[in-house]
Amino acid sequence: MANYTESIEKLIERLIKLPGIGRRSADRIIGYILDADLSEIKLLSEAISRMKENVRVCRICHNLSEEELCKICRDPRRRQDIICIVEKHSDVTAIEKAGTFDGVYHVLMGSISPLEGRGPADLKIESLLKRIKENHIKEIIIATDADTEGETTALYLTKIIKPLGVTLSRIGLGLPVGSNLEYADADTLSKSLESRRAI
Amino acid sequence: MANYTESIEKLIERLIKLPGIGRRSADRIIGYILDADLSEIKLLSEAISRMKENVRVCRICHNLSEEELCKICRDPRRRQDIICIVEKHSDVTAIEKAGTFDGVYHVLMGSISPLEGRGPADLKIESLLKRIKENHIKEIIIATDADTEGETTALYLTKIIKPLGVTLSRIGLGLPVGSNLEYADADTLSKSLESRRAI
Repeated sequence: MANYTESIEKLIERLIKLPGIGRRSADRIIGYILDADLSEIKLLSEAISRMKENVRVCRICHNLSEEELCKICRDPRRRQDIICIVEKHSDVTAIEKAGTFDGVYHVLMGSISPLEGRGPADLKIESLLKRIKENHIKEIIIATDADTEGETTALYLTKIIKPLGVTLSRIGLGLPVGSNLEYADADTLSKSLESRRAI
Repeated sequence: MANYTESIEKLIERLIKLPGIGRRSADRIIGYILDADLSEIKLLSEAISRMKENVRVCRICHNLSEEELCKICRDPRRRQDIICIVEKHSDVTAIEKAGTFDGVYHVLMGSISPLEGRGPADLKIESLLKRIKENHIKEIIIATDADTEGETTALYLTKIIKPLGVTLSRIGLGLPVGSNLEYADADTLSKSLESRRAI
């Protein structure tokens, strides 16, 4: 684009590195920035650098935090002896939305995937084991995804946590609430039958 | 999203104001920023504020510029007595890409659209007339879009520029180069017949 100025070209180069932003969307964002008030664009620019500077991961559970310990680890009303293990930050958000879990979390920062070359050493497992041993943890819930990587990770975790003598469970897999049995896939149905409960 | 920290929420609020960015894309951009190096994110944040601070419009033609006059108006090889009138900055880019025009531009910053409440007073027409009168302009090419707004604008400009006694033309409307006649719409075909040339 011969007509753009140098500062615009430089910004476009940066914008197209962002996920989901191509040349066309970058052009539209440039147009927006050119039209907007300087003060508003200053706030956007500051919000980006401030977010990057302020946000880190919790020293204990690796959840997102702006302080050494995250809100959940700092909360005296949460049971510190029950840990729910999840793959990523957004899983914490999802479970918090459900609002029924009153323990703390451990974010693995990924899952085991031999296909993509991610093994146990790439996950936050060492700090998890240290936590279980040093903090009188009573119960562990494995809440990794229900896909191949999540199940592989859950199997691996079961193997290494079981010998430590804590109560260990996997979240229930089965029919989603509100869904129709006839549309459920075969794997979900067999998991659902396996995890049946006496009534 | 209960789990995001304050700085993240603030940034998301700003991001979703950008065109084409919804909550989902904002989430993905947040993930990218969290994973990226601090130095890279600093450069992004700076590129945004620097672009907004540096870029303004050329005092003469209203094209984008980082100095008082844009590159084209400053270029001594360009003929300063032929003006091509376009609606917006990206039109300058398009014509510069073609690479055959050696005059200068005048960016109207919009088009006349009674439906959207934009009249001649909303466009940079006053400065255009001043330019024509004061700078010995010999020729004017009206290169507004071939849609209703563009045609309305071209008609209006013709009416006010014609009395000034400069050579005035409208860019050729017709079959796009490389296109098939059988797929052309009726309006394009009749324009194409109207603007036929003797061979």
